[in-house]
Amino acid sequence: MSLDALLPNLGEWLRGTGPESDIILSTRIRLARNLADIPFTSRAEAPQKAAVLRRVRDALAKANLPYTLQYHDLAALSPLDRQFLVERQLISPELAAHQGPCGVAFDPRESVSIMINEEDHLRLQVLRSGFALEDAWQDINQLDDALEAHLPYAFHPQFGYLTACPTNVGTGLRASVMLHLPALSLTRQLERTLRAIQKIQLTVRGLHGERSHALGDLYQISNQVTLGKPESRILQELREVIQIILAGERQARQLLLQEQRHVEQNRVARALGTLGSATLITAEETMELLSVVRLGIHLKLIDNIPTTVVNQLFIQCQAAHLQKIVGHTLDGEERNVARARFLKDRLRQLGPQPS
Amino acid sequence: MSLDALLPNLGEWLRGTGPESDIILSTRIRLARNLADIPFTSRAEAPQKAAVLRRVRDALAKANLPYTLQYHDLAALSPLDRQFLVERQLISPELAAHQGPCGVAFDPRESVSIMINEEDHLRLQVLRSGFALEDAWQDINQLDDALEAHLPYAFHPQFGYLTACPTNVGTGLRASVMLHLPALSLTRQLERTLRAIQKIQLTVRGLHGERSHALGDLYQISNQVTLGKPESRILQELREVIQIILAGERQARQLLLQEQRHVEQNRVARALGTLGSATLITAEETMELLSVVRLGIHLKLIDNIPTTVVNQLFIQCQAAHLQKIVGHTLDGEERNVARARFLKDRLRQLGPQPS
Repeated sequence: MSLDALLPNLGEWLRGTGPESDIILSTRIRLARNLADIPFTSRAEAPQKAAVLRRVRDALAKANLPYTLQYHDLAALSPLDRQFLVERQLISPELAAHQGPCGVAFDPRESVSIMINEEDHLRLQVLRSGFALEDAWQDINQLDDALEAHLPYAFHPQFGYLTACPTNVGTGLRASVMLHLPALSLTRQLERTLRAIQKIQLTVRGLHGERSHALGDLYQISNQVTLGKPESRILQELREVIQIILAGERQARQLLLQEQRHVEQNRVARALGTLGSATLITAEETMELLSVVRLGIHLKLIDNIPTTVVNQLFIQCQAAHLQKIVGHTLDGEERNVARARFLKDRLRQLGPQPS
Repeated sequence: MSLDALLPNLGEWLRGTGPESDIILSTRIRLARNLADIPFTSRAEAPQKAAVLRRVRDALAKANLPYTLQYHDLAALSPLDRQFLVERQLISPELAAHQGPCGVAFDPRESVSIMINEEDHLRLQVLRSGFALEDAWQDINQLDDALEAHLPYAFHPQFGYLTACPTNVGTGLRASVMLHLPALSLTRQLERTLRAIQKIQLTVRGLHGERSHALGDLYQISNQVTLGKPESRILQELREVIQIILAGERQARQLLLQEQRHVEQNRVARALGTLGSATLITAEETMELLSVVRLGIHLKLIDNIPTTVVNQLFIQCQAAHLQKIVGHTLDGEERNVARARFLKDRLRQLGPQPS
């Protein structure tokens, strides 16, 4: 099945539904797992990696899961297709760059994905729209149990699950919540908030994971510690912090509306004006401007653009998606032209903006 | 006659016709003159200033001029009306601020204006669209002769015309050319050019005269020296320098087109996008954006906006013009709202922009 069939879909993480979706785009939980009888990916030979692939696929076939999985051998995919999967959050940039045998399986909703031969043999991931730690946990726990029934996981009675990187040992669990925090950012309260978060052993990153800065005011907040606490406590601690940030962003949005409604309205109108008129635009600037529009929608400063359209534009303006839409590869400069044309056309279809 | 009648007119300096009008907006010559038997304005008592007013008006009535003049007593004008005249370049900011008896007379084309009781008793001014030093000189020389036949000018056989400020003694002549130099500015050649100009005793200023910086890439270049040279030589030296700058700007525009056509197109499209979408906009930003649009027109990157519309928007977005259009006074914040609305409406009337 060609990946192009995914193009019209928003995927789970941009569906825009789910609890608190005015601020929280998505919740993600991943579990790192390894087979006990094969060296970690970085030390495994190609035949060993191929064996991991085969055994995991067998286990998936035997597991009685409530969804069907689509499997893709990454070696068979073009760099463009790999990047496309990264943009849809179905694989990590690390897996996309992996040279040996590796693959990914995911469900039609793009809610569950299983990366094989990433840093660990198995990276199970569940994505949920909005703030849904409990649902995501139930889904991934079910998937993990189903696979464990057929695969000998590397597990140590004292340490727990063993992983390639010591920071994942124990539960192997990382839970991340992707938040849109434009108002905290605008009102300069964000830095203080994020400093506080880091003190309590949570990690803050941008959209594309480690080393990416927070483009478009999108922040991923996740647990740092995987060892010495049960999963339920890791999730509970994260949940509490997210609730505090959520309240802070809501309050900051109210303040913006009360104190500088006109300034904000102007910013939103100009962002739409630029998106609809530029003839060259980078993915980064597009994300920044869509972030402004998204806030404008939730502040009810514009009403003729649905959030889902913003989410669609957000993903469709990424490099690989854009090239798939156009139907051929484009260099950086050509992408800036194609992106601008695409945005202009899409916004024109929505009709004139209110004044 | 109410000043509001001027509102639909562009005035001479924004007419957009005249030689080299792709770069040169207008040419202005002014002569400083004083009556021999009355102290300079800064030292004259109110009755003496009133006498200057009366005698100049009598002389204007007797002079056989090829145009009719409309006279306005500035004491009778509101601050808004005074500012309106400043924006149309018919009076100086200094005259607008003058507290005692003072006035201005100008012709229907707004090409000739006579300020009474500015720094000097008389400031004669001729404005011409485009690059027209010779025409402006002939007009002002004729006006000066016609007035001199009826007024005893302060004149010293060795120094020439005596003026309130020593920098004007001699010819009392200042010739200024208003240039639009966006390409020299963009390509960073402007600073060097302007430094060279100052070495040869010419002055560079922004739109609103001394102390104003070059908003909208508009530069006024004028002679510094009024003493020890005949008028013809002052004008010839200015003409030669302007021709060099003109050639430089033309070359810089060609380079822009050859080397970064797409970048420039993007800049122009975005400027129009912002002008047509902002809900708050200052006069300064409007001028900067209209400067980009004006260059876009002359580079033929847009074809559905005539230069005259840009010139119209340019003047209509100034504070006093805007308040006259709206029909009541507005504070700074209200002007930014009204200006944005006005721009949006006017640009909508021009129809959709090409992509």
